[in-house]
Amino acid sequence: MDSTIKKICSGDVRSASRLIRDIEDKIPEAKAKIKKLYAHTGKSFIIGITGAPGAGKSTLTDALITELRKQNKTIGVLAVDPTSPFTGGAILGDRIRMQRHAEDPGVFVRSLATRGALGGLSQAVGDAIHVMEAMGKDIIIVETVGIGQQEIDIINHAHSVVVVLVPGMGDEIQTMKAGLMEIADIFVINKANRAGAKQLQTELTSMLNLSSKTADGWKPPIVMVGDAFKPDTFVKDTAKLTQKIEEHHVYLQQSGKLTERMHRKAMAEIKDALSSCLLEPVFESLTASGELEHFAEKIKSGKADPYSVAEEITQRFFKKQDKK
Amino acid sequence: MDSTIKKICSGDVRSASRLIRDIEDKIPEAKAKIKKLYAHTGKSFIIGITGAPGAGKSTLTDALITELRKQNKTIGVLAVDPTSPFTGGAILGDRIRMQRHAEDPGVFVRSLATRGALGGLSQAVGDAIHVMEAMGKDIIIVETVGIGQQEIDIINHAHSVVVVLVPGMGDEIQTMKAGLMEIADIFVINKANRAGAKQLQTELTSMLNLSSKTADGWKPPIVMVGDAFKPDTFVKDTAKLTQKIEEHHVYLQQSGKLTERMHRKAMAEIKDALSSCLLEPVFESLTASGELEHFAEKIKSGKADPYSVAEEITQRFFKKQDKK
Repeated sequence: MDSTIKKICSGDVRSASRLIRDIEDKIPEAKAKIKKLYAHTGKSFIIGITGAPGAGKSTLTDALITELRKQNKTIGVLAVDPTSPFTGGAILGDRIRMQRHAEDPGVFVRSLATRGALGGLSQAVGDAIHVMEAMGKDIIIVETVGIGQQEIDIINHAHSVVVVLVPGMGDEIQTMKAGLMEIADIFVINKANRAGAKQLQTELTSMLNLSSKTADGWKPPIVMVGDAFKPDTFVKDTAKLTQKIEEHHVYLQQSGKLTERMHRKAMAEIKDALSSCLLEPVFESLTASGELEHFAEKIKSGKADPYSVAEEITQRFFKKQDKK
Repeated sequence: MDSTIKKICSGDVRSASRLIRDIEDKIPEAKAKIKKLYAHTGKSFIIGITGAPGAGKSTLTDALITELRKQNKTIGVLAVDPTSPFTGGAILGDRIRMQRHAEDPGVFVRSLATRGALGGLSQAVGDAIHVMEAMGKDIIIVETVGIGQQEIDIINHAHSVVVVLVPGMGDEIQTMKAGLMEIADIFVINKANRAGAKQLQTELTSMLNLSSKTADGWKPPIVMVGDAFKPDTFVKDTAKLTQKIEEHHVYLQQSGKLTERMHRKAMAEIKDALSSCLLEPVFESLTASGELEHFAEKIKSGKADPYSVAEEITQRFFKKQDKK
């Protein structure tokens, strides 16, 4: 076995961190390593935590870690930071996050930011999860800012999805629920001491009652979590959240839905891998030859439209497929 | 000329609306129509407005419309709603937005939501903008929730980018600025009557002073906009915003930067068109043959890894390229 792979499988933090960084930086060798790691993955339970900026996801993740550590579970945390495509997540790095658990060898925290436009973030998330799986983590928590298709793609890598809402965030948050409704297994109304928490709970309950989701045997519970600065109730609230996540895990196992989720995850991974595998060489080739610039000039001056350009390029790169 | 094209070019709302809906629904004929429309585009000035959910973008857009209508400019508004990939934007539709201008024939408002995972939203935005350009709108405002790479891709379609911030939105918003810094031409601190507005302004000013952006002749101004429920100051504040946008337009024209922006836009459009043109037939073919499901099973059971699968598929579809 490759020595890096061996080290990662024995839980070595340094090797795992380096591979995750290489994934983020799209170092070609990282891909080869992930391929080899693959046989050692698939045993962790993966929790996705998503919600708007400022919803308190990091604080909740921190509390979840504390609860799960009481049960001696080992934990990997992947904080996905799609908010800073240019800084590479340097500001909101591992240093600031979850400092409380920095000394605990049972907790491995890494953050991941997108670099480059070809939608590689979801793929990087999948790969970083595999690294943590190979390390033997019992639970992997993926935390992401939950808005838009990209985040839905990311959350497809999780087995169980926690959606965090807060009262009083305005219209757009409310409509966001519509999209989130489809992916949520558990809702948290965070900062539930705030005005509007009860109303949000009522609205959410009626939306859930109308939803077809409840038909498949799991009705997403709504967990109210109060002020993080009041430790007594906060600890009780987050213990309840942990319990609901565990119940969902048991439900997934007993109902056979875990297999469905794993299938969904595999589909997401194929699509990610295919997208990069098909697109990257084409873009690289066109950029290197200067053709991409040339085409942009033609489009800018109205001499061509992007669709015709794309068709021309596709014809050049694609084989004619035999009809089956 | 195609009768639909003719109608759209004469400003017909019904034909334009139908084509935008067809773009959103990925009806193949829509693509052919956009190709034909292309010759009639490129004359509008395109403003992008982005910011977190609840930042008050719609209210600002509404105020901008009022200001620009005073100058008899015709306006197209595209409200991009990536928050509801499943509902297709039905909740936060055109009906609720900008009702004030519903009766004004000089204002055309449409919303657009993402459907399907292949990153087609940015492309749909580009195409919908072309429809509004062909209609002859002087100004097109693209409003999008500003988090993540997807929204940066969307905003690449604009000539001038307004980033809306609000005081007291928590850490993640603050870090968001790092990414937004790169794309912002104008900052708005909205709800500037709230506590923390002054501090946000100070922080932003120091970030801007440190930034290399200011070197190219345009220092992004920070416009403070107060409570929308106090019409007197709000109208004054949004008039100032309108003025700053106009100043930026003049700057872009005089400095030759408008050409650069148009080039950036053309590049974004080629990439979007290429992505869908390359990926869609492959996914369609693999889905129809049931192979995608088959590969997912293999990956789920650990018999294959996504990268090897993707490489196998790529080899099958791609021609060997001659080295130049």
